[in-house]
Amino acid sequence: MKKYVYHFEEAYGLGKELLGGKGAGLAEMTHIGVSIPQGFTITTEACSLYYNSNKELPEFLVKDIYQAVKEVEKKTGKKFGGDKNPLLVSVRSGARVSMPGMMDTILNLGLNDNTVKVLANETNNERFAYDSYRRFVLMFTNIAKGHPRDDMDKMLDDLKKEKGYKLDTEVKADELKELVKKYKDYYKKTFNEEFPSDPYVQLIEAVKAVFRSWDNERANVYRMMNNIPYDWGTAVNVQSMAFGNKGETSGTGVAFSRNPATGENKVSAEYLPNAQGEDVVAGIRTPLKIEELEHRMPEVYKEFMKTIKLMENHYKDMQDMEFTVEDGKLYFLQTRNGKRTPKASLKIALDLLDEGLIDEKEAILRIDAQSFDKILLPDFDRDDIKNYKPIAKGIAAGPGAGTGMLAFSAKEAEERKAKGEKVILVRAETSPEDIVGMVSSEAILTMRGGQTSHAAVVARQMGKCCVCGCSDAIIDEKKKTVTIDGKVYTDKDTFSIDGSTGNVYLGAIKTISPDLTSGIFARFMKMVDENRYLKVRTNADNPRDAQKALDFGAEGIGLCRTEHMFFDKDRIFSMRKMILADKLIDREKALAEIEPMQQKDFEGLYEIMNGRNVNVRLLDPPLHEFLPKEEKLIEELAKALNKSVSDIKNRINELSESNPMMGHRGCRLAVTYPEICRMQTEAIIKAAINVTKKGIKVEPEIMVPLVLEVKELKYVKNIICETADRIIKEANVKLTYHVGTMIEIPRAALLSDEIAQEAEFFSFGTNDLTQMTFGFSRDDAQKFLPSYYDTKILEFNPFKTLDTEGVGKLVKMSVAEGRKTRPDLHVGVCGETGGDARSIEYYHNVGLDYVSCSPFRVPVARLAAAQANIKNPRK
Amino acid sequence: MKKYVYHFEEAYGLGKELLGGKGAGLAEMTHIGVSIPQGFTITTEACSLYYNSNKELPEFLVKDIYQAVKEVEKKTGKKFGGDKNPLLVSVRSGARVSMPGMMDTILNLGLNDNTVKVLANETNNERFAYDSYRRFVLMFTNIAKGHPRDDMDKMLDDLKKEKGYKLDTEVKADELKELVKKYKDYYKKTFNEEFPSDPYVQLIEAVKAVFRSWDNERANVYRMMNNIPYDWGTAVNVQSMAFGNKGETSGTGVAFSRNPATGENKVSAEYLPNAQGEDVVAGIRTPLKIEELEHRMPEVYKEFMKTIKLMENHYKDMQDMEFTVEDGKLYFLQTRNGKRTPKASLKIALDLLDEGLIDEKEAILRIDAQSFDKILLPDFDRDDIKNYKPIAKGIAAGPGAGTGMLAFSAKEAEERKAKGEKVILVRAETSPEDIVGMVSSEAILTMRGGQTSHAAVVARQMGKCCVCGCSDAIIDEKKKTVTIDGKVYTDKDTFSIDGSTGNVYLGAIKTISPDLTSGIFARFMKMVDENRYLKVRTNADNPRDAQKALDFGAEGIGLCRTEHMFFDKDRIFSMRKMILADKLIDREKALAEIEPMQQKDFEGLYEIMNGRNVNVRLLDPPLHEFLPKEEKLIEELAKALNKSVSDIKNRINELSESNPMMGHRGCRLAVTYPEICRMQTEAIIKAAINVTKKGIKVEPEIMVPLVLEVKELKYVKNIICETADRIIKEANVKLTYHVGTMIEIPRAALLSDEIAQEAEFFSFGTNDLTQMTFGFSRDDAQKFLPSYYDTKILEFNPFKTLDTEGVGKLVKMSVAEGRKTRPDLHVGVCGETGGDARSIEYYHNVGLDYVSCSPFRVPVARLAAAQANIKNPRK
Repeated sequence: MKKYVYHFEEAYGLGKELLGGKGAGLAEMTHIGVSIPQGFTITTEACSLYYNSNKELPEFLVKDIYQAVKEVEKKTGKKFGGDKNPLLVSVRSGARVSMPGMMDTILNLGLNDNTVKVLANETNNERFAYDSYRRFVLMFTNIAKGHPRDDMDKMLDDLKKEKGYKLDTEVKADELKELVKKYKDYYKKTFNEEFPSDPYVQLIEAVKAVFRSWDNERANVYRMMNNIPYDWGTAVNVQSMAFGNKGETSGTGVAFSRNPATGENKVSAEYLPNAQGEDVVAGIRTPLKIEELEHRMPEVYKEFMKTIKLMENHYKDMQDMEFTVEDGKLYFLQTRNGKRTPKASLKIALDLLDEGLIDEKEAILRIDAQSFDKILLPDFDRDDIKNYKPIAKGIAAGPGAGTGMLAFSAKEAEERKAKGEKVILVRAETSPEDIVGMVSSEAILTMRGGQTSHAAVVARQMGKCCVCGCSDAIIDEKKKTVTIDGKVYTDKDTFSIDGSTGNVYLGAIKTISPDLTSGIFARFMKMVDENRYLKVRTNADNPRDAQKALDFGAEGIGLCRTEHMFFDKDRIFSMRKMILADKLIDREKALAEIEPMQQKDFEGLYEIMNGRNVNVRLLDPPLHEFLPKEEKLIEELAKALNKSVSDIKNRINELSESNPMMGHRGCRLAVTYPEICRMQTEAIIKAAINVTKKGIKVEPEIMVPLVLEVKELKYVKNIICETADRIIKEANVKLTYHVGTMIEIPRAALLSDEIAQEAEFFSFGTNDLTQMTFGFSRDDAQKFLPSYYDTKILEFNPFKTLDTEGVGKLVKMSVAEGRKTRPDLHVGVCGETGGDARSIEYYHNVGLDYVSCSPFRVPVARLAAAQANIKNPRK
Repeated sequence: MKKYVYHFEEAYGLGKELLGGKGAGLAEMTHIGVSIPQGFTITTEACSLYYNSNKELPEFLVKDIYQAVKEVEKKTGKKFGGDKNPLLVSVRSGARVSMPGMMDTILNLGLNDNTVKVLANETNNERFAYDSYRRFVLMFTNIAKGHPRDDMDKMLDDLKKEKGYKLDTEVKADELKELVKKYKDYYKKTFNEEFPSDPYVQLIEAVKAVFRSWDNERANVYRMMNNIPYDWGTAVNVQSMAFGNKGETSGTGVAFSRNPATGENKVSAEYLPNAQGEDVVAGIRTPLKIEELEHRMPEVYKEFMKTIKLMENHYKDMQDMEFTVEDGKLYFLQTRNGKRTPKASLKIALDLLDEGLIDEKEAILRIDAQSFDKILLPDFDRDDIKNYKPIAKGIAAGPGAGTGMLAFSAKEAEERKAKGEKVILVRAETSPEDIVGMVSSEAILTMRGGQTSHAAVVARQMGKCCVCGCSDAIIDEKKKTVTIDGKVYTDKDTFSIDGSTGNVYLGAIKTISPDLTSGIFARFMKMVDENRYLKVRTNADNPRDAQKALDFGAEGIGLCRTEHMFFDKDRIFSMRKMILADKLIDREKALAEIEPMQQKDFEGLYEIMNGRNVNVRLLDPPLHEFLPKEEKLIEELAKALNKSVSDIKNRINELSESNPMMGHRGCRLAVTYPEICRMQTEAIIKAAINVTKKGIKVEPEIMVPLVLEVKELKYVKNIICETADRIIKEANVKLTYHVGTMIEIPRAALLSDEIAQEAEFFSFGTNDLTQMTFGFSRDDAQKFLPSYYDTKILEFNPFKTLDTEGVGKLVKMSVAEGRKTRPDLHVGVCGETGGDARSIEYYHNVGLDYVSCSPFRVPVARLAAAQANIKNPRK
């Protein structure tokens, strides 16, 4: 019989896949001797079991859980629902990777009208007992039963108002007792049944609630954002409670073993006396600095610091921990590798390397490649910022600098972003419902909450600028105002906020990009480059982008899209003339006008790239894309060309297509209009000859798009070679050039052995290849993709991350077949997935020579390539 | 060193691939002792060599040809360019399969001012010698030099007019001598060089001309029509001349060993005294019946009949032969398996079987499956035809019956056909330039030419009705009139012509389809069905089509497209209401209106199919296809639905797509609108329950279109199964149904092992699969496909004939992978290629269970399936 339930001390080494991150951490902490409350983990496999059993727990699993509770009773000497020394437990989710705040937790489970009295008696703290009970009834109703908490929150607020209390802690024990009664009446009225007093019934409901929460909306959004597969599931951890709310010698807190915002090697922790964990995470009360604990309980503080070091040395990484002090005794509730800003992650990895805790390869693997471009985020211009004085200061919680107008709800942020506005999301505090709004904002500013509040944690992970706990600012979300020092700001005002100092400014401060050529970044990239096999090129059509990519470490151009060059104001007219010409001779004349300009483009690129590879793709889009659509522009064009409007409309009509993506484009243009291919070849080769004369080395790569058949490639290659060879001969120079093809049509991938007879190189165009392989029009798929995500038919956007199963299979086949024909076939990728870290790992593994991506993604690609090579060395 | 030149007697057994059909035939005739003129064959490999050598013959090949001529000189005792007994040769094309009239031939080569005199002297026939010389100069100029013959034809016509001659044969020797001089002057003026007198120079030019003619336009069109690969090339046969124009004891002719129109076992031959072969083929003079030869030269006739029997027994097939009688001596110039009408081919195959010459399997292989549907062509209704009297009678040359208005040129026929008119092409005689016009016509009527004229040969092969040599009709192509018995008919008149009697009628006679359930057809199809493995289903959406398919032998429905059912006048309104509904409840209401109608459709199909499989595909096209496009219709719809025009336009806009072929369609509709899928399932299952109650067996197959991922199929299958199981349970009946999928997206083909986990059957949708695999939008590809054919990048239309290399590779993978998961996976095809004979052979070979095609193609599919199984037995 498969085991679904493990006590912490028997679970060491079973891994996160089975136990979830939290469960594995608890097992490991037990193993290394950290003081934690007793308990057990219900595995992720039980989660699948739950979903496959029609969202129920099978009988045998329920029995196993009961049995596990008995064991905990034995170990703690407490009793679940017991008349004395009652066992109370927390029930928490724990997925394979941390998804903070996304799933549900229930605390104080095991309380009922009897145990609450025993607890009050035994702890001699009636207020604490009834406060716990109140919280439990509230959480059970809200989470296990899925009922909104508003009415119950209001009952507490009304009570406080009535009594004139400001803080929850002011409420008296008797009043809490009364409130519990009201809660339970409310429960009965709502569900038409008594609040369950049997702790075992409570427990099973709570476990199911946690499993259920794996599928809630915010968890699904989070998974999508972070590429977490749905079928992983979550584990559930049942742990005896430690009470941080037993009075002033109790408390709770969170700690990072190093600073998660900057990476500084200094414990960064917060402590909230007389409180339970949810008070900290929710950010409702602003916690104290950890130094306060040293003042209050120096022994506890000493053990706290020692244990942190122990754990960091064990895990060899920065730890994010929850702890509770119950009547002067320290418990760690959980530990995990801490989330950090991209910049902090870089510093921490290099520090750990220098401290000898990890080696170079491990340091490289420690950096999340996918978010590595966040390191390149701009900061405020040091000169410009001198002109501004901060109007407020909060906690520096997220990286970088952000400027935008104020938006007061997630929805507003989303809508204004859609309109093209830059906004800063301004909230009293954020909650998981705000995620989409946070994505849409340049930065986040909150009034409440510390460095581990929801806003701070999520912003850091997004690499988004965030200032939290800015109590100087009074934020009224309903009125949509921020009041600072009596001055009122509205959604028309622009703030600049600094995620590394916590400063808030009025107005838009200039930003500058960080220096990448020296310091920690340069050191790290040197390590990265020494460890990778894949070359990294860039997709660039002009010298500006090419220079940017070079700054980021690009080693060549993997895709120069020549069509962008035709859209230039000076050229589009000649282009249109060409398209509208009736005769070959007129087409050739128009092309001759474009040729010198195109040649200049290439010269510019060759010069910038200075000897590095430059891969030029021949004209790809259908010709109708170059023609005007508006009536007025058509009339102007007719006039300029001395043609009738109806002539031009006829031609537009003639060229229009039902499915342009699968229409007359790519090398099909070269087949029907060889003169276009000839002109482009001339420009490419003449430019190369010119720069060669200046002493710059260049071996142009000419790439034929949309090939589906070797005879087609051969036909176009003949045009290219005849033209190129003629010009080279006329110029009497030595120039090597290469002709290859995009692999972006499934048929070409399937017949790559043949295609390779003519192609010196392949470059996978994964955008089109994904379109054809899925039968998805990228322009239209947005209409049904949301349904595909909702139903979990698809979990990722296949245009962003390579679909390794389907499209990847074609890529793998193509590389293997192509190399059978031509062992030295040079193979790369230039689709959007060429800058995606997960895809790059796949490309490394199937034997590509290089990836090409947008300039900004070049560092990501370099890092992802190194990580892939460390995991599966090719050199 | 490879051998490119073979003498006839050393070539036996080398095969048509190398020698071409004509060359192989000459070698074989030599081998079995048929009297033929000496000569040699230059192989098809030499043709490739020519094209690869920049359209030149390499030095060594020229030498080989010279050497071969020397051998012929030795054997014949004649001398090339010799002062006495000069050797003259014919130079003819000969491809692997016969392409009559498509390539070029040059006769009498070797003549010059000297040899013509020797020839005149030695044959004592100056007129013959100069007539041969004249023809040679004309052909050489026209064919070897590629110059139009009009001017030279006019010189002869002028001469005849001047002298008052009617026939060419009236022209005197001296006049021919003078004409040759004129021809040669014309040649010199045109090419600025003397007409070549060296026979070796003439020969090499002629060989090159024949190779070049492989690539002429009409050959290319013919190849395309007949699926002949371009890279086969043609051989060249050089053969010493036999002269049929040496006087009244000479002559030439063509013969079929059986009747090519009816299949009757009787020699069918024509003879033209004192003529050369081109006179017969061109149809300029109407030849005599072969019985005339018996009168004139009984001994020759006897040998002629004996040799024909010898050849037929040797080849075990009906032979098509050319022969020449030179001064009373019979030569056969070539033999080949004769073209025949589909009906004749059936009779001949069964006769050969009965005669014991071939076995049953061979008889089945003898029938061309691709054109087998021509057997189903209608004939005139015997009752209706009694009301008509023939107005003229010609030679019955092509099968069936044809009715249409008169068109006087190929171009006119093509244009009127494009407008939807039915036309009969009426020509004095046809030439290869008329092919496209012949394709566009219902029938062909010519004034001149016999059963082997161009019109007759081509029409038979197309399975097109043809009456030729109708000398009763005076056809004026310029005036566009036909005059019969003084009555003038124009392009407004309708004729009916009978290809099996040669009768021509005025007016449109009713036609009826042939009886397929008895006689020779029934006998043959029984043999076919006993020999095939693949089942043959049909694509049918309504009882009428289904019945037609059953009559043709269909064994089930392989594809019922449900969308056609929604376009019905009564239903489209409900459909539109559904599409335009804002809420689920309104969509469901509209669907509920459609459901009973849809259910009725299915009941009708189940009843007709009476226990045979019925495969229903769920809704496939994008919803916008159901909405009106015209302003007026939109207004009407708005009124009927009580919505604003702009509301409706907005929705139309919302649904419109950039690339609908890859858009929101197929099972993507079921994912976003499960209620549509639910409604269709209900209709399918309820209908099945109803007919089951009537005692008709039915196991509906429900087919999910456009699947790309197993989770997607699983999701839709769940909707289907929940719905179906609920209804079956409610009805308390026993009903089995099957759920499967189309494989039409490359990704599904690539991941068929996974898809087969959920699919009980696969059906390849080769239309979409070809679109995606090629990246060809079927609607748009017409714009560039012609260029692809011209450049030989593609040789066939991949939508009609499966691209076995690319798309076929996916099909093969998919079947193999699918069966790995589910060994009893049922696999078929329902794209257009399911009715294409060549594709069917591939489907048989890769292990499909059935093909499904349009009703009319069912007999083709049955035959193709049997042929495939005979070649590669699966049962």
